[in-house]
Amino acid sequence: MPHIALPEGQFGIRGALAFRPETARPLNELADFLLHAPNSLSAGDRELIATYVSYLNDCHFCQSIHGAIAAAHLDGDEELVRRVKADFQYAAISEKLKALLVIASKVQRGGKNVTVEDVAHARELGATDVEIHDTVLIAAAFCMYNRYVDGLATVQPHDQAMYRERGKMVARDGYVSVSKTYLPAEPVRG
Amino acid sequence: MPHIALPEGQFGIRGALAFRPETARPLNELADFLLHAPNSLSAGDRELIATYVSYLNDCHFCQSIHGAIAAAHLDGDEELVRRVKADFQYAAISEKLKALLVIASKVQRGGKNVTVEDVAHARELGATDVEIHDTVLIAAAFCMYNRYVDGLATVQPHDQAMYRERGKMVARDGYVSVSKTYLPAEPVRG
Repeated sequence: MPHIALPEGQFGIRGALAFRPETARPLNELADFLLHAPNSLSAGDRELIATYVSYLNDCHFCQSIHGAIAAAHLDGDEELVRRVKADFQYAAISEKLKALLVIASKVQRGGKNVTVEDVAHARELGATDVEIHDTVLIAAAFCMYNRYVDGLATVQPHDQAMYRERGKMVARDGYVSVSKTYLPAEPVRG
Repeated sequence: MPHIALPEGQFGIRGALAFRPETARPLNELADFLLHAPNSLSAGDRELIATYVSYLNDCHFCQSIHGAIAAAHLDGDEELVRRVKADFQYAAISEKLKALLVIASKVQRGGKNVTVEDVAHARELGATDVEIHDTVLIAAAFCMYNRYVDGLATVQPHDQAMYRERGKMVARDGYVSVSKTYLPAEPVRG
């Protein structure tokens, strides 16, 4: 049971967002820009970073939904998502993404863990400054989203079909569009 | 030296925000709503929560600037800010704020650490559901901001006078207004 009276029938972060639309807006816009907007990193790669950090933070809802969104971007390859979580160094992903996942895992434990060598290695494999920035911010942001979802004890179903269905929707429409289905239509800010 | 080519002369998170204005906007709006907008929790109390979490995450820039903003809201009482960081249970703050700081410190270590008892205790001391929500999200958000600032190895001066001066400005004008001095004037999104 959630720690506070969240709206019923909204799972995971959606219950928290619906409870406080004022903060839902920037939280959704940040996720949309980091994960869904056009970027030199593919949406699949960015969702894998979000999924991996959520897995490290042991957040069931976030790793399930972002894993499902990642799979939707990757032609439904759920096995690849599982491989990335289990041991990304042996997964069929690019060496550049592996180097970015190393940076993300350092950020998950605390920003100071990222070394000059981690960044140099990613850069040698083709990562740009913007891609390194976005990796650090995606990892940092999921340290927020995961704590938000678990810190309120939101309801987190174990029905994988639900995540799969919603994952396809978010992969197609993004975070801001999808949130319109449960947030008030009127903008909160002026 | 920062891990990526951040604009020179912008310290801490400001360098990172100026590097990527697209994400600066939701990050500033989130901070402004959580810490500066009208709320039944005073801005001083909310900045103390942000300062305490930043201290737990050992982020020099964030604990310095938010400590300075908190002090500006608290008639310049820098000693109180130091007491809250050193041991808030013995600081001259309300019992309700102490209960909220317990929740914030649990969220800092991971959302699942927050217990039913922590929340019941805060509620007995007068905390509302919205205040508990905002405490969880402030703590979670600073687990992001701190990692963002340290994960990029931003420049973090040790000149307390600089933080004090800027702290007064942010306490007065908020986060969105202040960011206009270094972010592009044009909105990034349509």
